[in-house]
Amino acid sequence: MVEIMNNYCIIMAGGIGSRFWPLSKDNYPKQFLDILGTGKSFIRATYERFSPVVPDENFLVVTNKAYKALVLEHLPMLREDQVLCEPARRNTAPCIAYAAYHIQSRCKDANIVVTPSDALVLDNREFERIIRLGFDFLSHNTNALMTIGIKPSRPETGYGYIQVPKNGTQEAVRKVDMFKEKPNYETAVKFVEEGNYFWNSGIFIWTLDGIMNAIETYLPDIKNVFDKGIYNFGTPEEQDFINDHFTDCPNISIDYGVMEKSPNTYTIPADFGWSDIGTWGSLYTHVSKDEQGNAVRGKVVTVDNHNCVINIEDGTEAVVQGLDDYLVAYRDKSLLVCRLHDEQQIKVWIEGLK
Amino acid sequence: MVEIMNNYCIIMAGGIGSRFWPLSKDNYPKQFLDILGTGKSFIRATYERFSPVVPDENFLVVTNKAYKALVLEHLPMLREDQVLCEPARRNTAPCIAYAAYHIQSRCKDANIVVTPSDALVLDNREFERIIRLGFDFLSHNTNALMTIGIKPSRPETGYGYIQVPKNGTQEAVRKVDMFKEKPNYETAVKFVEEGNYFWNSGIFIWTLDGIMNAIETYLPDIKNVFDKGIYNFGTPEEQDFINDHFTDCPNISIDYGVMEKSPNTYTIPADFGWSDIGTWGSLYTHVSKDEQGNAVRGKVVTVDNHNCVINIEDGTEAVVQGLDDYLVAYRDKSLLVCRLHDEQQIKVWIEGLK
Repeated sequence: MVEIMNNYCIIMAGGIGSRFWPLSKDNYPKQFLDILGTGKSFIRATYERFSPVVPDENFLVVTNKAYKALVLEHLPMLREDQVLCEPARRNTAPCIAYAAYHIQSRCKDANIVVTPSDALVLDNREFERIIRLGFDFLSHNTNALMTIGIKPSRPETGYGYIQVPKNGTQEAVRKVDMFKEKPNYETAVKFVEEGNYFWNSGIFIWTLDGIMNAIETYLPDIKNVFDKGIYNFGTPEEQDFINDHFTDCPNISIDYGVMEKSPNTYTIPADFGWSDIGTWGSLYTHVSKDEQGNAVRGKVVTVDNHNCVINIEDGTEAVVQGLDDYLVAYRDKSLLVCRLHDEQQIKVWIEGLK
Repeated sequence: MVEIMNNYCIIMAGGIGSRFWPLSKDNYPKQFLDILGTGKSFIRATYERFSPVVPDENFLVVTNKAYKALVLEHLPMLREDQVLCEPARRNTAPCIAYAAYHIQSRCKDANIVVTPSDALVLDNREFERIIRLGFDFLSHNTNALMTIGIKPSRPETGYGYIQVPKNGTQEAVRKVDMFKEKPNYETAVKFVEEGNYFWNSGIFIWTLDGIMNAIETYLPDIKNVFDKGIYNFGTPEEQDFINDHFTDCPNISIDYGVMEKSPNTYTIPADFGWSDIGTWGSLYTHVSKDEQGNAVRGKVVTVDNHNCVINIEDGTEAVVQGLDDYLVAYRDKSLLVCRLHDEQQIKVWIEGLK
């Protein structure tokens, strides 16, 4: 097992998450919320999940500068310079490259885990085991680009899938055959039945060398941008350089830009109770319900409702009656009442308020 | 036509009105709301409706002391001593007697109109004509106890009715045959068909002598209470006397206590577009709707809703989708979502919040 002092964690926390409107908003996105009522925001829970294997000083949070104060509020153990501020959103590849160049200025032998900031994990112990397993694998496979692959529990059409060969099912780390975009329902059913497909969690493990080599090979445009400021990273000039040049990066995901192209991709099949809680519906499956199947949070009198999600902010009270399969959410002077099955339209509807 | 300087108006404004929860609450009852979005509260509109026939200094508002400041805020032309404060609710008879004793200390020849503070009138000019007609009638009929009777536009079961003889339909002021309690639906249909029944508006017109004589005859218990302080009315001691003795009055309505017993009752049939807006449903019938039949007030995106009442306080925004015949109301940290047809249960439901 490697020493943890070289382990780095990049938390990607730039999302704006309008899908949970009105709980999440531009000025308070999902990663800072405690939607599940656990007492911890998603970003806080993410930090705690990695802290057994990553020293506090090796966490980096990449976010928009608008959220820097929120990040430090939720993660007060971080120094200010551990919050890397993107001046604009450019998807995951530039975000990861930014953090990798920053790490390069501090530690050439870094092992890196990259994670979203707004997912749910139920079994932290198993999660830690999987992450350690990934770091261990790197000591013999410096150029491996690993993804955590989640054993699918249902034919989910909202996630990308990772295909591995049908043989070799005993191995803890599997070579990837192919990354698959979000499938339609029939394809998702097939994926689950065939057994050699996993959900793409968006959690990556690699060495600094591994990801820098991949960026050089597959994302030369991004390498060119950051190489211009190579001596600024890790200095007080870093932020100015980023502010001036980050937006020159193409908007591209690490999946599309690197993982789908590299021959060095691996996945670690895992089963630690994971969800990206990307929708109210996925939230519904993860919280306790009353006898009528309602997931209720807040001071609410519920009368004759069934299978509803009702989420009312503290300090506000509600009476809700006569709804089946509806979502009722109130926060920060904004109210949403809609059919749960139509929630994917929330983004469209809220445009009407602008 | 009598001079208006002897005309007094008693506005009864002690109601707590939980039927419009969450818009109306104990600390902000319906009479102070602008539910219809007219720019005027009910109590303000009530005052303005009477002001052509009653001098400002002859208005009296009877309310709970908790609402005194609100009354003066909505009616800043009143002096403090024009707001009579009941220490507790004792229905309309003690309320009216209190105000009558107060008026007696100021003007022995008063003509009095008594009105609720929370009804809607669409045609103020016709309203004024009717009230003047009532005052005129008093000059020849000092002991007449008049009620404004509203020509029924539908078989409403939420109002009391006033029966007049079938003959004499040309008279502007009709002798009352009988006051009828709220009927069931079949009876209400019959009342409307027969044509000699009117809704009891709760607006009364009488002389000071007329109502004092009636109180003496039919409500001696109430007379006894107020006679004890007869020399306090109109003095700085009035409020102390009321605080000490008002609750000795029996809880009884003026309809039951006087109108149903006196042989001197009359009604003036009127048709000035009246509603007591006692329910969300009655509100719905009086406001403009969008093409899908939704009555919407506030900053609301409505998607695929039909025949809903949606009422969101200023400063708050809402997206409401997929509801038919529902009520969605938000005010002052309280939310209600329920079927419009079940709104009579609101009182019961909100008990659950306590």
